[in-house]
Amino acid sequence: MGKLLRINTKEKTFAFEEVPDAYAALGGRALTSQMVLDEVPATCHPLGKNNKLIFAPGLLSGSPAADSGRLSAGAKSPLTGGIKESNAGGLVSQKLAKLGIKALILEGKPEGNDYSMIVINNDGVEILPAGNLEKKGNYAVMEAMWDKYGKNTGVLSIGQAGEQCLKGASINQADINGRPGRAHGRGGLGAVMGSKRIKAIVVNDKGAPRVELQDKDAFKTANKRWVEMLHNHPVTGEGLPALGTAVLVNVINEAGAFPTKNFRSGRFDHAKDISGETIAETIEKRGGVTTEPCHPGCVIKCSNVYHDKDGKYLTSGFEYETIWAFGAHTTIKELDDIAMLDRLCDDFGLDTIEMGVTLGVAMEGGMIEWGDGKTAIDLLGKVGEYAPEGKIIGNGALFTGDALGVDRVPVVKKQALPAYDPRSCKGVGITYATSPMGADHTAGYGVTANILGVGGTVDPLKKEGNIALSQGLQVATAAVDAAGLCLFVAFAVLDNEDGLQTVVDMLNAQYGLSLTTDDVIALGKAILNNERAFNRKAGLTEVDDQLPEMFKESFPPHNTKWDFSNEDLQETLKF
Amino acid sequence: MGKLLRINTKEKTFAFEEVPDAYAALGGRALTSQMVLDEVPATCHPLGKNNKLIFAPGLLSGSPAADSGRLSAGAKSPLTGGIKESNAGGLVSQKLAKLGIKALILEGKPEGNDYSMIVINNDGVEILPAGNLEKKGNYAVMEAMWDKYGKNTGVLSIGQAGEQCLKGASINQADINGRPGRAHGRGGLGAVMGSKRIKAIVVNDKGAPRVELQDKDAFKTANKRWVEMLHNHPVTGEGLPALGTAVLVNVINEAGAFPTKNFRSGRFDHAKDISGETIAETIEKRGGVTTEPCHPGCVIKCSNVYHDKDGKYLTSGFEYETIWAFGAHTTIKELDDIAMLDRLCDDFGLDTIEMGVTLGVAMEGGMIEWGDGKTAIDLLGKVGEYAPEGKIIGNGALFTGDALGVDRVPVVKKQALPAYDPRSCKGVGITYATSPMGADHTAGYGVTANILGVGGTVDPLKKEGNIALSQGLQVATAAVDAAGLCLFVAFAVLDNEDGLQTVVDMLNAQYGLSLTTDDVIALGKAILNNERAFNRKAGLTEVDDQLPEMFKESFPPHNTKWDFSNEDLQETLKF
Repeated sequence: MGKLLRINTKEKTFAFEEVPDAYAALGGRALTSQMVLDEVPATCHPLGKNNKLIFAPGLLSGSPAADSGRLSAGAKSPLTGGIKESNAGGLVSQKLAKLGIKALILEGKPEGNDYSMIVINNDGVEILPAGNLEKKGNYAVMEAMWDKYGKNTGVLSIGQAGEQCLKGASINQADINGRPGRAHGRGGLGAVMGSKRIKAIVVNDKGAPRVELQDKDAFKTANKRWVEMLHNHPVTGEGLPALGTAVLVNVINEAGAFPTKNFRSGRFDHAKDISGETIAETIEKRGGVTTEPCHPGCVIKCSNVYHDKDGKYLTSGFEYETIWAFGAHTTIKELDDIAMLDRLCDDFGLDTIEMGVTLGVAMEGGMIEWGDGKTAIDLLGKVGEYAPEGKIIGNGALFTGDALGVDRVPVVKKQALPAYDPRSCKGVGITYATSPMGADHTAGYGVTANILGVGGTVDPLKKEGNIALSQGLQVATAAVDAAGLCLFVAFAVLDNEDGLQTVVDMLNAQYGLSLTTDDVIALGKAILNNERAFNRKAGLTEVDDQLPEMFKESFPPHNTKWDFSNEDLQETLKF
Repeated sequence: MGKLLRINTKEKTFAFEEVPDAYAALGGRALTSQMVLDEVPATCHPLGKNNKLIFAPGLLSGSPAADSGRLSAGAKSPLTGGIKESNAGGLVSQKLAKLGIKALILEGKPEGNDYSMIVINNDGVEILPAGNLEKKGNYAVMEAMWDKYGKNTGVLSIGQAGEQCLKGASINQADINGRPGRAHGRGGLGAVMGSKRIKAIVVNDKGAPRVELQDKDAFKTANKRWVEMLHNHPVTGEGLPALGTAVLVNVINEAGAFPTKNFRSGRFDHAKDISGETIAETIEKRGGVTTEPCHPGCVIKCSNVYHDKDGKYLTSGFEYETIWAFGAHTTIKELDDIAMLDRLCDDFGLDTIEMGVTLGVAMEGGMIEWGDGKTAIDLLGKVGEYAPEGKIIGNGALFTGDALGVDRVPVVKKQALPAYDPRSCKGVGITYATSPMGADHTAGYGVTANILGVGGTVDPLKKEGNIALSQGLQVATAAVDAAGLCLFVAFAVLDNEDGLQTVVDMLNAQYGLSLTTDDVIALGKAILNNERAFNRKAGLTEVDDQLPEMFKESFPPHNTKWDFSNEDLQETLKF
């Protein structure tokens, strides 16, 4: 059944609590969003003592289910002012699950600025002074933690951005090599951790029992089918393992939906220079890894390790969204510059989507030149120096636009748009507008049917069908996030008739339940309803469910416009 | 009847239009708020081409009515995201009225960054390149304008803050000495003017006829009684002329409502050092002016000219709110430092309330030390240098708090609170919370009955009566702002049975109408309803009608708390 672990960051105390019945069937995003709604006053200051930072493993995390090692982090977002769930791979989710910790809740706020770290293992919990970890980047923190607590220790940490409570701050997780390549990136949750003066959380599961499975045989059968599905799908079995997520660069550019120069057109002249193919080739030449899992038990392995021109490690977890944000969006075309920007984000603990979009806005405002990678690196470096420029850009795209008087800022609910233009990939545009998370492709990845031909086809350039597409995906995604599954399983789930049933079979086998697929859909809707309820209490309205004015501009090459009314959009999450 | 003058800032063209019937009976705030509601899309970017900046003289402006020379400026606010009306004295309101211009509307947005200036006189309108006025402060701009266009020319201009489109930017008006001592301070309207690349507006009424009065005798009689009332009231006839608005320092400090060190207590140990008495004494010693009107025809004359220790001009229009914001709020106690901060704000074009509160927030966040006037001057100076620190603090208290990770930021609707603590002066606290303008004492000055014993008495420390007090004052103030009258006339209006009737008599005599006091009350309500309607369309909700969390703290010396519920507050402007 597990426990809730509450940590009072002011008093430096902790308590294990029984899980209330109402939370028993919840995990991952379902649990974080429910608890944020229940326990966080919606109008509180996100950096104040009344906000809470909640980590919850997915329902399947810790089990042998393939690709189930995602950890959800939830809080009131300093970026959006609404509820936030941001999930990531790494090592922590499975370890918390094995330790029987259903949720870890950070509460309160210390009065001073001294940082602590939290050590969780099978013997209990320690809250220790962070000592010389303060002002260190995530690379140094994670190296120190693995040195001290052993390899393969789960680590959650913040870098200089989180310490400064910047709205772009991420919480990073040690990847399988002990590097901060995985991130709870979106929504500034690193700032919430920083406000509670927690520098790092270390999780070790040595001595912990395996996660209990009520029906081992049934679980094994379902998981076998599950793995087979993931292996056999062309996206999760071939495209992602071979080229990583950057496989999308050429695909989305070809589709004319690759937002270039702050969303001015859908094709980037230098897409080839930053494509998945070029990256894979470069990695092979320089020595790196093209096919790496973000957590143990992943069979897709879309992550990577990228070396510099001298063959030395430069960055890892170098993803499509990052490459787009620092690349086409800013018109920087040098892959090594983009990789360095990614590395800085991992080290300082910053969301790469938010930061890439921010650099584009800084270019729009004349702070730096379009396409100038070296100056962009210098500017991003200011975050690590605690300099005023860093406090501007580290607070994200809208903040930077406001600092510079720029009125062309691509955000919804104050969060930067990701790598698919909403005018030429309308299914994901609907998700950007209506997701309680703010602009977020992972909340309902309409790219599937719009461009990839997965789960049917819906014309990306027309209105028809796109609201239903986004709705279905948002509901399914919420459930996937509750299970702790990687979003990419959606490809296999959508294209296999027994896809969702197989997930349900694993849940039933693990917990001794008899859920149906309808129950899972209902869970997805309940999550979204909770999140919308929080946002309404926090003061967000229908106005916040719209794209900004700039998307009324016509978008080449298809010369499409954003043509959904407020009334259209309000249909999306009406259940 | 007058005309509307529309200026297209992109095309650099202008047009005079007939006044629609619906606007015929409106002036000042009544007209700007109606036009913003009618013409500005509520969800537009405040710095984008769809926002409009509208100036309107009050209904009595240009007439001989005492203290009727206030000009309203209206737009969607870059600071609050809602509607804004900010009025100021100076020379422009009366001149526009004499030129028959009922409203001046700046529309559109140029594509480049070149600034223009607008010259309006009896011969017509010119839109000229601003040339070397660019990047100049308001002192230099106004001096250049008076040199070129003659003394007593009306000037509206922005300084470096407006050019940078900062949320704290004001629009300044030349005072009777041609200095920028008067400001449309609140809500960042200078940024809207900057976004439209208008550096200055020059208004000359040479050759224009007098404002027509339908019944000259009746007007004369009413105005005579009006002047008598203003002269005979102890506040407008004695306190304000003698000591200026800073007469309030000792009064509010004594009442325990003088917010000190970012609203931590209601008494400032060094209040005496920055009191009206000390200021008047200092001015007399050094040579300056203690009793000066902010516009011709003012009989209260609460403005001043303040010299430095060498007897040279330092600043003017040195007001209570400014002295509080840079003084008690930041714990700076050196009057000359405070005066220098005021001067910098006038020169760069910044709202002194917003900037003072911002400096306190910067101290809260450790950017500079509490009470350190010299460092505060250096920091504020960064705005004039176009430096990153300036882009942070110039964007106001909330922005600075966000940049620094401070969760203790005294704002409502993102606008900084003025100089009366809402816990120990609850009537004005209700106004802060519920005014469509954001935290603004001038929107419903509950200090009257709470502390000054004007218009009755309502206990400032208790809930009882304060919602009704604020409601009545907000309605009356909206009407006063429509008339173009100085807010301080409210003292005489509240304490004379025939006060409001006298204003109505002047309106009737000028326009040949037969309005009643009920009509004027109805006008006030209509203004507030319009403003709330705009805000709702812009996405503001009941959540925005509340004080921030920090006011739940107990406030010494009376140890009062903010104890109004959302339901209580929603009663205030329910008509």
